[in-house]
Order: sequence, then structure tokens, then C-alpha cells
Amino acid sequence: MKVRVLVSLKPGVLDPQGRAVHHALEGLGFSGVESARIGRTIDLDIADGTSDEALTEMCEKLLANTVIENYRIEKLD
Amino acid sequence: MKVRVLVSLKPGVLDPQGRAVHHALEGLGFSGVESARIGRTIDLDIADGTSDEALTEMCEKLLANTVIENYRIEKLD
Repeated sequence: MKVRVLVSLKPGVLDPQGRAVHHALEGLGFSGVESARIGRTIDLDIADGTSDEALTEMCEKLLANTVIENYRIEKLD
Repeated sequence: MKVRVLVSLKPGVLDPQGRAVHHALEGLGFSGVESARIGRTIDLDIADGTSDEALTEMCEKLLANTVIENYRIEKLD
């Protein structure tokens, strides 16, 4: 089973990497970019019987820092 | 206009960060994880009139390293 976990910073949390990307896009001449925020994806290939609870636990314990990050679990197949 | 760019390593490219996550999940007792691969997302808030060509150019020039990475552009609204 293929699962994608999307992790993004919570609104209001500073994102220096996103600011750098925003600044670089402007430097390259792309006007009209209002903001850029960076997140990450973790694509997992897991055993078919894996429960939603186990997936949530993986996110809470390791994949996301829930103090500053939100996560979303998407099943790809 | 909100746009999400998903950047992932091409198949076959080594992903040490993904291996570390895989190893850590096993260490936490999550069996059944066969692989983990890490990617990133760039959420852009851009002017409504921005063309697809400009978006592709942003990806090719800055957001993705097309030698080792694939990217996909998703319009969120």
C-alpha cells in the first residue's frame, strides 16, 4: 500500500526557507509571487494491513513535529 | 492563485533521508514499512494571471533539480 504523508508548517510559524525561495524567485525576475512556504512529503510503501491508527502514530511520533507542523495522510492506492 | 509544487527524487536516486526515516520507524516498532522516500512541497501564492510557462520555468530554474528530481505542479484553487 502506498501512502503519502504531507507535512506543512502551521500558519504563523516562520518559514525562513520559504522566504529564501520567495526572494530567489523575485531575484530571477518572477514578479507576482506573494508567498512561498515549504513543506515535505514522506512516501511510504507499507504492508496492506497497516491500520490508520498505526499511520497516525508514525506521524505523531516521528514524521511530523506537531508543535509547529500539520500533517495529512493520503492513500495513493 | 494557490499552487503547490511537489518535488520528489527520481526513481533510482539514493535517498539517505528516506532510509533514515525507514530505519527510525523500524526502531520505533513499526514493522511492515517497506520503503520511505522524502520529497518536498513548495506552496506558492501567486498572481492570478501567472502563466503555466512561468510556473514551469520557476520549477526548472529554481524549485527542482531536474537532474535528480521530478516535479509536479498542482493548482489548488
